[in-house]
Amino acid sequence: MKAAIIGATGYGGAELIRLLHYHPDVTLQSFHSSSQEGESIAASYPHMQGIAEKNLKHIDPAQIAKEADVVFAAAPAGVSAELVPELVDNGARVVDLSGDFRLQDTGKYEDWYQKKAPDKQYVNQAVYGLTEWLETDITGTQLLSNPGCYPTAALLALAPLVKQNRVDTSSIIIDAKTGVSGAGRKAAAATHFTETNDNLKIYKVFKHQHTPEIEAMLEAWSGKPEAITFSTHLVPMTRGIMTTIYADAPQDMTAQELTELYQECYNDCYFVRVKEQGTYPSTKDVYGSNFCDLSLSYDERTNRIMIVSVIDNLVKGAAGQAVQNMNRMFGLNETAGLDLIPVYP
Amino acid sequence: MKAAIIGATGYGGAELIRLLHYHPDVTLQSFHSSSQEGESIAASYPHMQGIAEKNLKHIDPAQIAKEADVVFAAAPAGVSAELVPELVDNGARVVDLSGDFRLQDTGKYEDWYQKKAPDKQYVNQAVYGLTEWLETDITGTQLLSNPGCYPTAALLALAPLVKQNRVDTSSIIIDAKTGVSGAGRKAAAATHFTETNDNLKIYKVFKHQHTPEIEAMLEAWSGKPEAITFSTHLVPMTRGIMTTIYADAPQDMTAQELTELYQECYNDCYFVRVKEQGTYPSTKDVYGSNFCDLSLSYDERTNRIMIVSVIDNLVKGAAGQAVQNMNRMFGLNETAGLDLIPVYP
Amino acid sequence: MKAAIIGATGYGGAELIRLLHYHPDVTLQSFHSSSQEGESIAASYPHMQGIAEKNLKHIDPAQIAKEADVVFAAAPAGVSAELVPELVDNGARVVDLSGDFRLQDTGKYEDWYQKKAPDKQYVNQAVYGLTEWLETDITGTQLLSNPGCYPTAALLALAPLVKQNRVDTSSIIIDAKTGVSGAGRKAAAATHFTETNDNLKIYKVFKHQHTPEIEAMLEAWSGKPEAITFSTHLVPMTRGIMTTIYADAPQDMTAQELTELYQECYNDCYFVRVKEQGTYPSTKDVYGSNFCDLSLSYDERTNRIMIVSVIDNLVKGAAGQAVQNMNRMFGLNETAGLDLIPVYP
Amino acid sequence: MKAAIIGATGYGGAELIRLLHYHPDVTLQSFHSSSQEGESIAASYPHMQGIAEKNLKHIDPAQIAKEADVVFAAAPAGVSAELVPELVDNGARVVDLSGDFRLQDTGKYEDWYQKKAPDKQYVNQAVYGLTEWLETDITGTQLLSNPGCYPTAALLALAPLVKQNRVDTSSIIIDAKTGVSGAGRKAAAATHFTETNDNLKIYKVFKHQHTPEIEAMLEAWSGKPEAITFSTHLVPMTRGIMTTIYADAPQDMTAQELTELYQECYNDCYFVRVKEQGTYPSTKDVYGSNFCDLSLSYDERTNRIMIVSVIDNLVKGAAGQAVQNMNRMFGLNETAGLDLIPVYP
Repeated sequence: MKAAIIGATGYGGAELIRLLHYHPDVTLQSFHSSSQEGESIAASYPHMQGIAEKNLKHIDPAQIAKEADVVFAAAPAGVSAELVPELVDNGARVVDLSGDFRLQDTGKYEDWYQKKAPDKQYVNQAVYGLTEWLETDITGTQLLSNPGCYPTAALLALAPLVKQNRVDTSSIIIDAKTGVSGAGRKAAAATHFTETNDNLKIYKVFKHQHTPEIEAMLEAWSGKPEAITFSTHLVPMTRGIMTTIYADAPQDMTAQELTELYQECYNDCYFVRVKEQGTYPSTKDVYGSNFCDLSLSYDERTNRIMIVSVIDNLVKGAAGQAVQNMNRMFGLNETAGLDLIPVYP
Repeated sequence: MKAAIIGATGYGGAELIRLLHYHPDVTLQSFHSSSQEGESIAASYPHMQGIAEKNLKHIDPAQIAKEADVVFAAAPAGVSAELVPELVDNGARVVDLSGDFRLQDTGKYEDWYQKKAPDKQYVNQAVYGLTEWLETDITGTQLLSNPGCYPTAALLALAPLVKQNRVDTSSIIIDAKTGVSGAGRKAAAATHFTETNDNLKIYKVFKHQHTPEIEAMLEAWSGKPEAITFSTHLVPMTRGIMTTIYADAPQDMTAQELTELYQECYNDCYFVRVKEQGTYPSTKDVYGSNFCDLSLSYDERTNRIMIVSVIDNLVKGAAGQAVQNMNRMFGLNETAGLDLIPVYP
Repeated sequence: MKAAIIGATGYGGAELIRLLHYHPDVTLQSFHSSSQEGESIAASYPHMQGIAEKNLKHIDPAQIAKEADVVFAAAPAGVSAELVPELVDNGARVVDLSGDFRLQDTGKYEDWYQKKAPDKQYVNQAVYGLTEWLETDITGTQLLSNPGCYPTAALLALAPLVKQNRVDTSSIIIDAKTGVSGAGRKAAAATHFTETNDNLKIYKVFKHQHTPEIEAMLEAWSGKPEAITFSTHLVPMTRGIMTTIYADAPQDMTAQELTELYQECYNDCYFVRVKEQGTYPSTKDVYGSNFCDLSLSYDERTNRIMIVSVIDNLVKGAAGQAVQNMNRMFGLNETAGLDLIPVYP
Repeated sequence: MKAAIIGATGYGGAELIRLLHYHPDVTLQSFHSSSQEGESIAASYPHMQGIAEKNLKHIDPAQIAKEADVVFAAAPAGVSAELVPELVDNGARVVDLSGDFRLQDTGKYEDWYQKKAPDKQYVNQAVYGLTEWLETDITGTQLLSNPGCYPTAALLALAPLVKQNRVDTSSIIIDAKTGVSGAGRKAAAATHFTETNDNLKIYKVFKHQHTPEIEAMLEAWSGKPEAITFSTHLVPMTRGIMTTIYADAPQDMTAQELTELYQECYNDCYFVRVKEQGTYPSTKDVYGSNFCDLSLSYDERTNRIMIVSVIDNLVKGAAGQAVQNMNRMFGLNETAGLDLIPVYP
């Protein structure tokens, strides 16, 4: 299988190259970039020198569709909206990592992204790829919309409870913390080293564009629309997301029951690891890997459930899940190219 | 005024030395340590060489009480319980930075600290020193119990709302994040650089000993006992605490109203800075200083209030507030020795 | 005394504000910025809110000269070249923190800075202010050129040896390491958090503009021009410079002899602390302070001297030394406004 | 092939597990630990949960030798000295990652390690495994002594010049900088997060036990014994070593000539990447990988050569090179299990 990567000079693109380089069934066919066309990928990423070097090509959707079996679109929101339809029309099978095709409600897209929504026909065609909870067989899917990093961490943490109606979704509060790579590669004042190191910030308060993505899935699972509280913090570290999720328990529970429910639920999911009751995940436990580690607690003093989940935002939160989805789309082994032990310490 | 510092080799002790060194009305009289007695403080802290060098002395409460006008006890929990009564009996005026005298309910102390409680007589005598919300004049106080770092950040954030009964305290969730200096100077596996750097952890889940301290004050203010949810995260940074606090709003509000309420409430409090509506504090905004920065938000979609507060855990969360309390106890200018611009970047 | 700060929104400017705020003899008169004119300094630096807030003013040299007793120019290289002559012509007493007036050889300035040199008349008038080694009384100086951060660390480390002709300057190798704040506040790809965190880089190899500044002083002290080897590394930390300096010993020595030579030499210099033989400075030992800590070693196996020096690049390497020079220029106590214990940890 | 790992709970052991997990020709047979015997490796390293979990076994050299085709000894110096002879006597093929068998001169071992040297018979039998510069075919080697982290970085940087007698080894100065994982997993005051973060230290001045290891190889290559200057700095990052090496050029050279010499020399070495002239490596370029990146410079002003090399101290500096050596010993593809793109950012 030949893979093309659009937006190869972003962090999502670079991570796709790293993962696909190991993949037993995939050949890296071509890398594409609008800004560094003609240059070697190693000019942007010296760490790839001599391993996965290729010159960056022009983004020509028709040509890409012709040459590649799978196309990963790792372009910014708004750009994918333009590119993906052309890829699809030319017959490409696409995994899109942007937010452009994640919201079926294009009005919400426009409200939260402050951009014009993509053509509704393609939005409708797109399958939302939270791999562990795919509702359909995607072996025939042409356009797969890869989830956002925060939604992946939050939804994997919430799915078992919400799908079984064990929690009132209106009581959900998601306090999320991310490493700085989530902000992308472009230098900016807010992510300048000296402004970020040894510092903890809260950002995009009540305005994060991942909010409606989380709510849409919760609604799909619970059957009723509810707004949740979702806040996002910037932690002085490169990779990793932790979500600490609070929800009122409708009835008395124990942490042990919750843990068992989750263990059962995720029993067949290689990439979701439910921690033993009383132990908690750290972001570094999944560094560089496609795992999501979860722990369940129950606060008997307040009758609140607390779920903690961690992922590597660039892997399970982006490129890794994209590869996992590709594996499903093409009937490959789900762990192909992803069977990596996290890099620790 | 002559000040003695017990436990001078811990981070709280070192920070007291740094702050008192500037203090116009205080002379550093003596430093005391059980473990490094006889050594220079500069052997533990080379940064003090040539500035505040003194040999560490034996901890002899009677002698200390005789020589110093004010004694700062910065010993670990459990140790203060033994030392402070002797200091008090010998007539010393004491600011105690440990948790030993913060909980009037000594049963709760024993539950949460897993230590034997101090003699109840001294606990009762102690005044809890959240400076901005002191209920009494402390110019005559002999034993001042300095608040914990998390309680300081959380209670300053909650006081105006709770005292005015604008919030149901049972709905309060405090998601707290701290830098690593809060764990003290003793090397431990959990705070080894390689285990902590580029890593985010959650710890002491539902077991943090600051929980009853927060609850006790909320009860004092609201008039009714309620359990809160309080979780604590370890962030790869040296200093700083951020609390992100969620509470259900009993009625519709606006962020602007909340902000104004707080601005008015803290109008005369130099060390509490209420941010303009729509702006948020970062921990580095208060690095090395005694400030607590606060912001108020209101999520109209969920009718939840969100309060964000930041402090430097070693300053407003420990040594700085201790000096502020000393200033009050001795009728000095409240900002004496504390009028520092935070160190940024 | 009234002080004006030009370039107040850079890190050097912000640090001047922090230090002068404590200064017993100085009032902060006005802050100036070309880019953020009219805004409050707290918009750029929220940590100053309520402490040292002022609106940023236009840079009008004549007006500034009229209103301020001392002007700190903390503008980028090239900008000072334009501004300072006007300030001087209007009678201001100026401490310039840029590199523009440090090199008497304007040809070298143009070679290394790749900019047009300032008017030679002003360059000649400027006194190079490595405070501990000032050759002249500066109480009458109108234009003081404040040294660069690396030259300060390197020259304080080398002065005693070179001035006493105890070392062949041609054998000197300076391996320097800096925190990221040295690169200034402007966001750039090279100092983006994710590119810098957990990463160590070497930069500007053999091209750093501080090279001729160091060489000029060594020549002034030794009497002969020699090129030195000087390399610069970017360390993932906010503040601090360490220079590790190697030089051939012309004769057998001991570390103890060297240490004593330096201790004697710097005996009256409050801000230079010579470590006891066998102990070594870390950058954090001087964090936020005006100290330079030094240690001397002698490698008997190779007959090489090794000197290690550390400073805070923003304090002794910029704003702190500027204040120290101002103190000298105005006949104030040398430590006024600078008697700070470093912030540790 | 079945591999046993002794000392699996150290960072070297953990990294061996990570790398061997991918290795197409190796099965992880058993993990051994004296301190955590009986526990799961996931108790020490939660990141391995569900991937490479095994219970830690007792260290029984005879049993291990019987069951494993290759034994990796990742025990501390001094412990290997005891264990390895027993393994060898029982017929095991061993890759030893400690310093115990690296120095043929056991007197020097005792001087620098301050420990009793291992039995000389085994020291003599051991082959020093700087893979790119192995002098012999090791397909029959029974005991392979894996190089230290600093020696690997320094010797790969120096080999071409020294072997071709293009440099006077007595002029060599190696200024080395390491991440904190080099200090191992055991918590200690010097590597406590708060003491290390945002701090740069120099340590073990003129006493680092890797000094004689570097000198022994330089002597083997140049034919004459010379002492070098070697200094080591602790950088606030988890992984990575950079060596900045200075040497006098015996004749005029150009950086381009040097670069070409090295490119030619390392042309067939997949894991050594010589940078294009004028570009420089950063430690993160090799993070998590077995690469050593090198750059060559020539300072025309001083006639000095400067070589910069970077490795990941835990990979090419320990576990990665151990696997590379194992590949050679067993006639496998040299890159098997090591063909990883570095983890960036």
